[in-house]
Amino acid sequence: MPAYATNMRFKFPILALTLEIITIILFAVFCTYDDGKGHGHDAESNSTAHTKKPMDLYPMFQDVHVMIFIGFGFLMTFLKRYGVSRVGVNLLLAAFGLQWGLLMQGLWHMEDGKIKISIFKIINADFSTATVLISFGAVLGKTSPVQLLIMTILEITIFSINEHLVAEILNANDVGASMIIHAFGAYFGLSVARVLYRPGLQNGHDNEGSVYHSDLFAMIGTVFLWMFWPSFNSAIADPGFPQLTAVINTYLSLATCVLSAYAISSLVEHKGKLDMVHIQNATLAGGVAVGTCADMNIEPFGAMLIGLVAGVISTLGFKYLTPILASNLGIQDTCGVHNLHGMPGILGGLAGIVAVALGKTNKGSATMQAAALGSSLGFALVGGAITGFIMKLPFWGQPPDQNCFDDSLYWEVPEEEHEEHEDMLGQADHSKNKAEA
Amino acid sequence: MPAYATNMRFKFPILALTLEIITIILFAVFCTYDDGKGHGHDAESNSTAHTKKPMDLYPMFQDVHVMIFIGFGFLMTFLKRYGVSRVGVNLLLAAFGLQWGLLMQGLWHMEDGKIKISIFKIINADFSTATVLISFGAVLGKTSPVQLLIMTILEITIFSINEHLVAEILNANDVGASMIIHAFGAYFGLSVARVLYRPGLQNGHDNEGSVYHSDLFAMIGTVFLWMFWPSFNSAIADPGFPQLTAVINTYLSLATCVLSAYAISSLVEHKGKLDMVHIQNATLAGGVAVGTCADMNIEPFGAMLIGLVAGVISTLGFKYLTPILASNLGIQDTCGVHNLHGMPGILGGLAGIVAVALGKTNKGSATMQAAALGSSLGFALVGGAITGFIMKLPFWGQPPDQNCFDDSLYWEVPEEEHEEHEDMLGQADHSKNKAEA
Amino acid sequence: MPAYATNMRFKFPILALTLEIITIILFAVFCTYDDGKGHGHDAESNSTAHTKKPMDLYPMFQDVHVMIFIGFGFLMTFLKRYGVSRVGVNLLLAAFGLQWGLLMQGLWHMEDGKIKISIFKIINADFSTATVLISFGAVLGKTSPVQLLIMTILEITIFSINEHLVAEILNANDVGASMIIHAFGAYFGLSVARVLYRPGLQNGHDNEGSVYHSDLFAMIGTVFLWMFWPSFNSAIADPGFPQLTAVINTYLSLATCVLSAYAISSLVEHKGKLDMVHIQNATLAGGVAVGTCADMNIEPFGAMLIGLVAGVISTLGFKYLTPILASNLGIQDTCGVHNLHGMPGILGGLAGIVAVALGKTNKGSATMQAAALGSSLGFALVGGAITGFIMKLPFWGQPPDQNCFDDSLYWEVPEEEHEEHEDMLGQADHSKNKAEA
Repeated sequence: MPAYATNMRFKFPILALTLEIITIILFAVFCTYDDGKGHGHDAESNSTAHTKKPMDLYPMFQDVHVMIFIGFGFLMTFLKRYGVSRVGVNLLLAAFGLQWGLLMQGLWHMEDGKIKISIFKIINADFSTATVLISFGAVLGKTSPVQLLIMTILEITIFSINEHLVAEILNANDVGASMIIHAFGAYFGLSVARVLYRPGLQNGHDNEGSVYHSDLFAMIGTVFLWMFWPSFNSAIADPGFPQLTAVINTYLSLATCVLSAYAISSLVEHKGKLDMVHIQNATLAGGVAVGTCADMNIEPFGAMLIGLVAGVISTLGFKYLTPILASNLGIQDTCGVHNLHGMPGILGGLAGIVAVALGKTNKGSATMQAAALGSSLGFALVGGAITGFIMKLPFWGQPPDQNCFDDSLYWEVPEEEHEEHEDMLGQADHSKNKAEA
Repeated sequence: MPAYATNMRFKFPILALTLEIITIILFAVFCTYDDGKGHGHDAESNSTAHTKKPMDLYPMFQDVHVMIFIGFGFLMTFLKRYGVSRVGVNLLLAAFGLQWGLLMQGLWHMEDGKIKISIFKIINADFSTATVLISFGAVLGKTSPVQLLIMTILEITIFSINEHLVAEILNANDVGASMIIHAFGAYFGLSVARVLYRPGLQNGHDNEGSVYHSDLFAMIGTVFLWMFWPSFNSAIADPGFPQLTAVINTYLSLATCVLSAYAISSLVEHKGKLDMVHIQNATLAGGVAVGTCADMNIEPFGAMLIGLVAGVISTLGFKYLTPILASNLGIQDTCGVHNLHGMPGILGGLAGIVAVALGKTNKGSATMQAAALGSSLGFALVGGAITGFIMKLPFWGQPPDQNCFDDSLYWEVPEEEHEEHEDMLGQADHSKNKAEA
Repeated sequence: MPAYATNMRFKFPILALTLEIITIILFAVFCTYDDGKGHGHDAESNSTAHTKKPMDLYPMFQDVHVMIFIGFGFLMTFLKRYGVSRVGVNLLLAAFGLQWGLLMQGLWHMEDGKIKISIFKIINADFSTATVLISFGAVLGKTSPVQLLIMTILEITIFSINEHLVAEILNANDVGASMIIHAFGAYFGLSVARVLYRPGLQNGHDNEGSVYHSDLFAMIGTVFLWMFWPSFNSAIADPGFPQLTAVINTYLSLATCVLSAYAISSLVEHKGKLDMVHIQNATLAGGVAVGTCADMNIEPFGAMLIGLVAGVISTLGFKYLTPILASNLGIQDTCGVHNLHGMPGILGGLAGIVAVALGKTNKGSATMQAAALGSSLGFALVGGAITGFIMKLPFWGQPPDQNCFDDSLYWEVPEEEHEEHEDMLGQADHSKNKAEA
């Protein structure tokens, strides 16, 4: 067999171990446990005599954790020959990303020269990885693990700068991170995808499609994301009633979004059938779009209207916009993150501007909300372009066009399909060539 | 290709969007957030100085949420060509049902003319959808999404009336809802199935069976239901020790039920093998049957005896009763909900009568428990029959017999099986007809 | 068809029901609900005025529950023809094991002659089943359900003795149970596997391998174990900051372990590819290895170093040690539990000795830690050997060599593969022999 330039035997282990050892050294210098002594009296709930306990947010954290590792991991297993890569590389990127995110976000909030790790901080570390996992969706199947590790470092670093700007300088609202995670992650990924444009995939690829069972695996991801999204949008809200408001708004926006996504999917498909791609993705757009104003007093029906619109634009985006982006702008968005995170994220940012202008919260200003949205898009597009050019350097082991969307390039897949197939035919008694065993 | 009468292109989107818009209007008029001010001092736990916080029940809510969307969704993916429909339509019906349930249940508990949405209320909204998802099991594969949306509205409305009667008028105990959800949902569904009887399916259907991997997907549903059932049965119990009692009783009943279900499955199958249908379903009957008296002081061994009996009758029901119902009574119960929810639900109601008569709780009376069981069965049978006749109207796009149990009638399934197969044979280099791409 | 000696028709139901009825009688005599009155003031957190409420640990319990039933259940579904057995028998063993564990552990902590069941106790009952599920991995595919039920009783009984010795007599630290669960379960299982050595499997078995989708099912198990491991290691820690410390140490150790497992996997595989077996298992070794000192003040970077080493030795073990154990020592470790639980468990025990010696906790002594590790290994090896000889008795229905790793010996598998295959070829219109229908 020929030696591919995609052989990762030394590149990948050396990069991964080097990064990890540097990270451990940085943790040794900068990180310790939160001892609870640095807490001010800033974010108290309105329940009387409430003292914050160190584990209060732990169930919320675990919900978010499930979204990151199961939700994002399985959502994008729909490709027939790429499920192992998606789940496996998702775990790799998120595991490294959360360490890097703890450092990058923590640098802005040091106490006595130390980053004090709490449940609140590890929730935010998980959040920071979400941006990478969203961008990963745009370039899925066309990048090597080495390229993706590089993207992880750069994207989380840039994310942390924008997040600090939005939250601390502009004092903008974005509790559910429509702008700083969803829109940011989507446009960052689209910008990378544009730079990595592959003319050879312009007419599609044999492996770019799903099979029956891969669609069911993807639904595991969809449903876990859908269920736990109220935790995502409320985890870092002020405790008490603001948190309850964020849960209820997200719960209702998502429920409404399901109905509009199904309705539009049936309307635009031939013979009125439902399309799995729409169902797997557009049903989640309500969670994205209600993010910025999740903890505001927009009333339940306000959240539902946001969800209704999000489901419509997301489904229409999958049907009509994704093909145009690919053919006219050279943006090959494998998973359609523009439809699930991009446009609904902008919708969320706009809804936030309107809600603040209408006085639905007593924090922030509409101008600062608009600045936050602009900042998130700007950092994403520029940061993504720079990252894309670095990823394009020819020695990161990127796959040739014909091996895109194929697990077997970077993974030992179980066995030859031919053998699997023989077993299924009940002809397993053939002599086998089990050189691997 | 011929235009089927099953084309949903306009029927479904119009119905779904109309229902959703009506619902949003009703939410705008009637619903707001719970501000905690309407809480009385009724349900305090016996721990001192305990003040109820708005998010206390949130982890329990998420467990119930997982049961509804993952548990019910995947439990019934065992059919070889219907997994996508089950998971997908499950999401659709539950997403609409929880909105409708919030309204229907909330109407009985308005404060200042408003339904104040709390975690407690969204748990109950999730509960109300469980009835529909149970009934869905009886008619799975033989109904269109349009028919099922209609069933959702009618069943939740009727459920809410019966629930109000049982809980507020009769003051009956049913903390885990053996009667008002499980027995109700099962007999409602069986009643619908009887009205929709299809003589053409009397000798079975080629698609009515499982394949290897579909059984594993179904086990995802089974195990999540099994694990979180203690949350289902204790979520709305009084906080503190009554809630602990409900958790422990359910945990032990379920564990015992597994042993009896496995034992009986092996006993009745030829050569002593275990049957996946029994394992997927009858292992859960202990959770159903202990529901009514879950928070009562029945002692751990009492809960275990209930679980033991539930596992036996459920497994025997799958083996012997389901075929008789189909052939003699014209009740074609696709998923055997009679065995998982019907008989164990009645067993739960009867256990509740006995437990109240024996003084295992200081609330309610045995007579009222019996009335609650009768009311639940009565509403279910009559309500289900009426609903069935409405669903039978010939313009809801129901599938013809030969297309039952087949995803591809209402869903864009990934690609032709033939092509999938070629890929698996490693012959992907054939010229392909990818008209869809 | 010939009547196998593996027919379980009477053996299995009689054993299962007898055990269950004995267990119910023991529960009737010994068990009641925890009423909270026996609680001393021993384990208070350092938050002021903290009163322990009966349901405080419930979310942690549910995380552990998911690890036991989904995590262990699906982790070992990777075998192409044994997924149903693994998930199904996992449920059976854990459901019985948790009852038996409640009794065996409870006997050492009776109040007023009663075992008072609390959330804390059912977490520990779940823990005790983990030992059995680990050992199950070593003998997977080569044992009958009857043999495994026998192993469950014996292993949990022996585990409870060792646990009491370690925790109460030696006063050793093992909050995340590196020694008393992971090392114990692994070496117990390896000892059983040695006694049950099958020369006929020395050259491998046609069914011993994975297929594409079975690897994705296994990843469901891997990821749920990975995500909830912080709950496993912190569930029974002292509330408050010790619990937070255990969460953070475990979170970071696991994240680091992912990087080292991926790096080493790529380094040792030909052409630098990643191996699914390593990814499914070695990524979890960090959770095992940080267990003993999870709640100690080892600093975040200390936890990360433990995770880094654990990922390396676990991956190398899969690659180089498992084949040697099988060929030279006659230990056929189906799932490689030695690499995931055995060596990382010992590493955890050693790390605990060092951490105590360095004063990272104010409880216990390094000598007692060493004694605890020795005790766990000794009980495991001797107990496993005795259990193995009992399991080897010729009337428990063990599978012949040629039927190992095959679900169809003890399970009704859905349908003939040949028929399934025809459906996939789209030739379903053939006349079928549906004798089973």
